[in-house]
Amino acid sequence: MRFKSNDGKTVFGRVENGYLHEYAGLHDPVPTGAVLSTRALSQIAPCAPGKVVALWNNFHALAAKLDKPVPSHPLFLIKPAESVIGSGDPIQRPVSYAGKIAYEGELGIVIGKRCRNASVEEAAASIFGYTIVNDVTAAELLNENPHFPQWCRAKGFDTFCCVGPAIVSGLDWHACHVVTKVDGVERQNYPLSDMVFSPAEQVSMISHDLTLEPGDVIACGTSIGVGSIKDGATVTVSIEGIGTLSNILALAGEGTQQAAITAASISV
Amino acid sequence: MRFKSNDGKTVFGRVENGYLHEYAGLHDPVPTGAVLSTRALSQIAPCAPGKVVALWNNFHALAAKLDKPVPSHPLFLIKPAESVIGSGDPIQRPVSYAGKIAYEGELGIVIGKRCRNASVEEAAASIFGYTIVNDVTAAELLNENPHFPQWCRAKGFDTFCCVGPAIVSGLDWHACHVVTKVDGVERQNYPLSDMVFSPAEQVSMISHDLTLEPGDVIACGTSIGVGSIKDGATVTVSIEGIGTLSNILALAGEGTQQAAITAASISV
Repeated sequence: MRFKSNDGKTVFGRVENGYLHEYAGLHDPVPTGAVLSTRALSQIAPCAPGKVVALWNNFHALAAKLDKPVPSHPLFLIKPAESVIGSGDPIQRPVSYAGKIAYEGELGIVIGKRCRNASVEEAAASIFGYTIVNDVTAAELLNENPHFPQWCRAKGFDTFCCVGPAIVSGLDWHACHVVTKVDGVERQNYPLSDMVFSPAEQVSMISHDLTLEPGDVIACGTSIGVGSIKDGATVTVSIEGIGTLSNILALAGEGTQQAAITAASISV
Repeated sequence: MRFKSNDGKTVFGRVENGYLHEYAGLHDPVPTGAVLSTRALSQIAPCAPGKVVALWNNFHALAAKLDKPVPSHPLFLIKPAESVIGSGDPIQRPVSYAGKIAYEGELGIVIGKRCRNASVEEAAASIFGYTIVNDVTAAELLNENPHFPQWCRAKGFDTFCCVGPAIVSGLDWHACHVVTKVDGVERQNYPLSDMVFSPAEQVSMISHDLTLEPGDVIACGTSIGVGSIKDGATVTVSIEGIGTLSNILALAGEGTQQAAITAASISV
């Protein structure tokens, strides 16, 4: 996990029984020896991606529901670094957009080593671990212009990429489900075993398109059950073994990107 | 302009008569007092954007040719930081792609100050200056999948965003033309006065979608005359008052991203 300390320093490490065992960094995960109580720390997103590569149509069940063939290569868009927030941070409605905002609960892959033109084996070795992503979308903008689907704009707004609460190395994702709830009501519950491209395949194929850097995140795409979030509602996305990512859609005019409205939901 | 020195240090500053007058940085453009001969330096892209926001359909002449209405908001995709190269660096064909590669000569806006929800006046004040962009595209990937146009993938490959040679502050773009040549033969020559959204309007409207950071680049979109580049051909894009951006499409197996095949074309 990553935290901000009171003096504004960013600390990264392994959390156990309420204490952070600090690591030198994500691409050099060796303990520094420092141990800090998490009570004095504020949780932030567990990594700082330079870019988030977000997949579309990567689950067989969703492809069937959309009546689309599964793709032969990952279909993706890029969400910018500035869209990333952590668990507990509020999603902010864009000032210029009054329409429907949708949640998408997803598995996130966190890159640990620079990765380019990687084989599936090399790709597997470049994965630092797994996290949870809520790939937020200004749904009505996506097809607002009939000549150009606005994937980057609809999904690229500041605060529209919730990532966290933790990165877990060595997670066996095959048996895991993604469970998304809105104000406590379950909306998504789908198995990761239904993925079209496995995490290592995604990293390998995408690394033939662009260089992946340590800290970059691939959002593996969502499955069925996507829906909208009312202002003031809280979305939680849970994956057993990682924890729960929790974010409120701030009421208009409330909160700031910096101020966490809900307490961080730490469950590792 | 920006350069690498022999000891691997990056230096940024104003170039005059073959000498670089170093500046503290793009968001703090004050002279450090250091003056270096550019002969001992290797030219690189004039800024290091965290992201490049690339516009589609931003010229009236191209919209008319495509028979599309001009948009009411900038239509854009995001090219990642790793796609950026400078003048003189070779464009590398992706190992997995044998198809047509297209050039697009464009004006580039370089952001100087963090910019979010900015008015047109605030946006104008946040522009550091103007550069030239060759927005390279793996043309056959764009519509390879009929259900998802792959804008980010087709335009996001490493080396597919040529930027340079310099950033010019205070350029009066209204009277400028973008002139693109392939192996010396003119292919594009269009006036910037034909833009749908002016640079300040682009920055203002896009800043309502996502935060623009110092060094970020907006590629203003291209106009008519887009075509393909043969392996080994050199594309130059010139804008009077900025200079000439020159990049070769490397022959398969030749060169590396690091090695400049052609000498940098410095004309400021």
